[in-house]
Amino acid sequence: MLAVHFDKIWPNRDRAWASASIAPHVLDPAYLHDQPAAPERAIAEWQIDTEQATATLLSPGTALGHLVLPLDPMLGCFGVAPDRGQAISTATSGPYGGNMDYRGFRPGVTVFLPVFTEGALFFLGDGHARQGEGEIAGTGLEISMDVEFSVSLHPQAGTRWPRGETAGHLFTVGNARPLDQAVQHATTEMLRWLCDTLHLDELGAHILLGHCAEYDTGNVFDPAYTMVCKIGKNLLPAT
Amino acid sequence: MLAVHFDKIWPNRDRAWASASIAPHVLDPAYLHDQPAAPERAIAEWQIDTEQATATLLSPGTALGHLVLPLDPMLGCFGVAPDRGQAISTATSGPYGGNMDYRGFRPGVTVFLPVFTEGALFFLGDGHARQGEGEIAGTGLEISMDVEFSVSLHPQAGTRWPRGETAGHLFTVGNARPLDQAVQHATTEMLRWLCDTLHLDELGAHILLGHCAEYDTGNVFDPAYTMVCKIGKNLLPAT
Amino acid sequence: MLAVHFDKIWPNRDRAWASASIAPHVLDPAYLHDQPAAPERAIAEWQIDTEQATATLLSPGTALGHLVLPLDPMLGCFGVAPDRGQAISTATSGPYGGNMDYRGFRPGVTVFLPVFTEGALFFLGDGHARQGEGEIAGTGLEISMDVEFSVSLHPQAGTRWPRGETAGHLFTVGNARPLDQAVQHATTEMLRWLCDTLHLDELGAHILLGHCAEYDTGNVFDPAYTMVCKIGKNLLPAT
Amino acid sequence: MLAVHFDKIWPNRDRAWASASIAPHVLDPAYLHDQPAAPERAIAEWQIDTEQATATLLSPGTALGHLVLPLDPMLGCFGVAPDRGQAISTATSGPYGGNMDYRGFRPGVTVFLPVFTEGALFFLGDGHARQGEGEIAGTGLEISMDVEFSVSLHPQAGTRWPRGETAGHLFTVGNARPLDQAVQHATTEMLRWLCDTLHLDELGAHILLGHCAEYDTGNVFDPAYTMVCKIGKNLLPAT
Repeated sequence: MLAVHFDKIWPNRDRAWASASIAPHVLDPAYLHDQPAAPERAIAEWQIDTEQATATLLSPGTALGHLVLPLDPMLGCFGVAPDRGQAISTATSGPYGGNMDYRGFRPGVTVFLPVFTEGALFFLGDGHARQGEGEIAGTGLEISMDVEFSVSLHPQAGTRWPRGETAGHLFTVGNARPLDQAVQHATTEMLRWLCDTLHLDELGAHILLGHCAEYDTGNVFDPAYTMVCKIGKNLLPAT
Repeated sequence: MLAVHFDKIWPNRDRAWASASIAPHVLDPAYLHDQPAAPERAIAEWQIDTEQATATLLSPGTALGHLVLPLDPMLGCFGVAPDRGQAISTATSGPYGGNMDYRGFRPGVTVFLPVFTEGALFFLGDGHARQGEGEIAGTGLEISMDVEFSVSLHPQAGTRWPRGETAGHLFTVGNARPLDQAVQHATTEMLRWLCDTLHLDELGAHILLGHCAEYDTGNVFDPAYTMVCKIGKNLLPAT
Repeated sequence: MLAVHFDKIWPNRDRAWASASIAPHVLDPAYLHDQPAAPERAIAEWQIDTEQATATLLSPGTALGHLVLPLDPMLGCFGVAPDRGQAISTATSGPYGGNMDYRGFRPGVTVFLPVFTEGALFFLGDGHARQGEGEIAGTGLEISMDVEFSVSLHPQAGTRWPRGETAGHLFTVGNARPLDQAVQHATTEMLRWLCDTLHLDELGAHILLGHCAEYDTGNVFDPAYTMVCKIGKNLLPAT
Repeated sequence: MLAVHFDKIWPNRDRAWASASIAPHVLDPAYLHDQPAAPERAIAEWQIDTEQATATLLSPGTALGHLVLPLDPMLGCFGVAPDRGQAISTATSGPYGGNMDYRGFRPGVTVFLPVFTEGALFFLGDGHARQGEGEIAGTGLEISMDVEFSVSLHPQAGTRWPRGETAGHLFTVGNARPLDQAVQHATTEMLRWLCDTLHLDELGAHILLGHCAEYDTGNVFDPAYTMVCKIGKNLLPAT
């Protein structure tokens, strides 16, 4: 199992581009059908101020004017080589990670990935100066990044889907369509983690997760959607 | 449109019961199939201390021992009578509200519901002393509640799904299966709100929502799942 | 359990109307989005010749000209009152039947419905002179019908979803979204039928159904989709 | 566009093996959960008589005894190399074909595949002496085959998903989860075929497909499910 700690993820340019429209498949089909003219798949341009840690909308012109948003840099896509010697486009995701577009992949996070291939073949990319939850526009504020990370190897622990840890939480990641299936993967992986690695009994794990789970939405745009199951570390029995 | 403001939601007993197992359909089918013995659909008993605002696990006995969790009281189910004169079980949900099991229905929230029938026929119930996100156990910590709320009428604003407001956010609620469709309903309703009621231009609404939306998961247990789309009120253009 | 045998379903007018466009949610969202102008939700008019058993397209004018199709009369919607005293719109469907829009509900079919209420409260309607599989246009060739049917009561046999019988097949009906869940309901109901009522052992039922099942698509238009699982009667062990 | 005509698909051994149990994810989660003991993932053995064109169940022993089924040989998996230089496991499927497990891929069928790579890199395998619709057991009667086929090249015709032709029908294939999305892909591809290649006007295509479409279910077992949209060739306007 590969542990990747992201020490730094920070934009190194002053311009980001972004999609200016919500993806059709995130909206009601009847709404789309009734729109007299769908918004162009326009591109928005954002100015990135890394000192103030802000993003300012430059164009197109809308009632938002020069909207200013706080930066929240993250990586949309990283992972290892998939199993069976496959080479799969980084547009999608799976048990190996990939294009998960989860806002929780911020500086400070540690991610644990199952290893399928000698050398693991870790890769990363898709820097977002910030991103809406779900990445419903199909992009974040896309920009190049300075990334510093450290990797270490751990004995494989029955990991079937990406796992992660922040200051406050453990989390697991399911990648699939529909979202229901991503929920199943993430929840089952957390149950496995609680029982197999953290040695909670199964009934205890059901009670803890059943009444304390939290969920974050990764992307609902890519070929595989991403759902994240979280549990507060303060809730875990002392070991 | 009916606006319901929840002033108080607070347990009035000292015991809550809860499911002690995660619902089968939230877990991977292959995991379920391979379990030598699925956990019984056991009931857990919790002691509720309304002064300390805690819930303490009494039974069954597990490695969790007498786990203590903070209270976070909310209502799982409320709504108005559905359209077309229907009488639909409160086990499910729809455009009229119903069994949404969303943790954000806490004291202080205001909810806006479309009105389909003379008198609206507002109802409420399903008190949870606390609940995991997704209600994946199929229950929260079920308990009776003292509820105080106030209602007012607003001109209908093209509302098709429940809307809500907290101190920090506006939110919209979609109820459907799969979750993908609940995402479509909630996102489209928020787009409608931004454009029709808040008078943002469509391109501006796409940019704002596309890069600042947040999602909460209501339930992934009931016949209809629930997804909530949120936008920070500080991001809205001054009106 | 209520058994309903449809002896006759035959149009009694000479005009049918129909939707002239495929429902937006049956097409790729990106395709819809890119269409310069979605087809109007136009109505088509068809002439029904009950002697020749044909339907002839009268309008609108297209390259199809006066397309002539064979009649294949069926009922889109019938069922009993749902459980728990509910009154649910006939636009949707469930364990009680309802708007299933399955082309197999032709003259000669026998349908078995679970009974939830005293008197069952059987209802029927939604005559289609013919219908595409999936009812993707949202209608069949809608017309009034002469319907003759006979009902009988059978001891309840653990029926949870509609079951049916034709000259050649037994079939079960699942109504839900997504279609995957309708497949689960229909397949599980057939497994129950094979094991509980027809007394096949469970392993035998898995082998038979696993390698001989057939599926028909009811509707993919209504709030609940419909999938039908079939097994040839000649494959069943003699009893 | 690559056209592949399958002249012969015929078993060349006298034994086939098959899964003896229905896949967990095709059954209701609550049913699985309540089963006291799920059937083992047993293997069934079948004797194949290529002269009589029958398959006879040899083991395991069930109430089915030595069930005899007609052969209906087909290929579960074939396709071309996917786009973007990907190498994707033949366990799944996509626009390039792959593990579609559709019973209609019988001798006599012609399949049209988009070409993404120089040389197309056509592959085939996964012979089934017969298969249930949906491949709900996860296998057909697996056996090696003598396969004869001929390929030809056609100008690309906007093909995005596999298309096919039999004596009576044109058909299109969508591969995705949930099934709803596979329906969208297959239906949209047929609409494209009718409009772009067969030069039907869009309104005419909507009417024809809307009231005459048929659907077959490929697999509901693999990572991507498969749905097939068909139209009778006798319904097409003369060209």
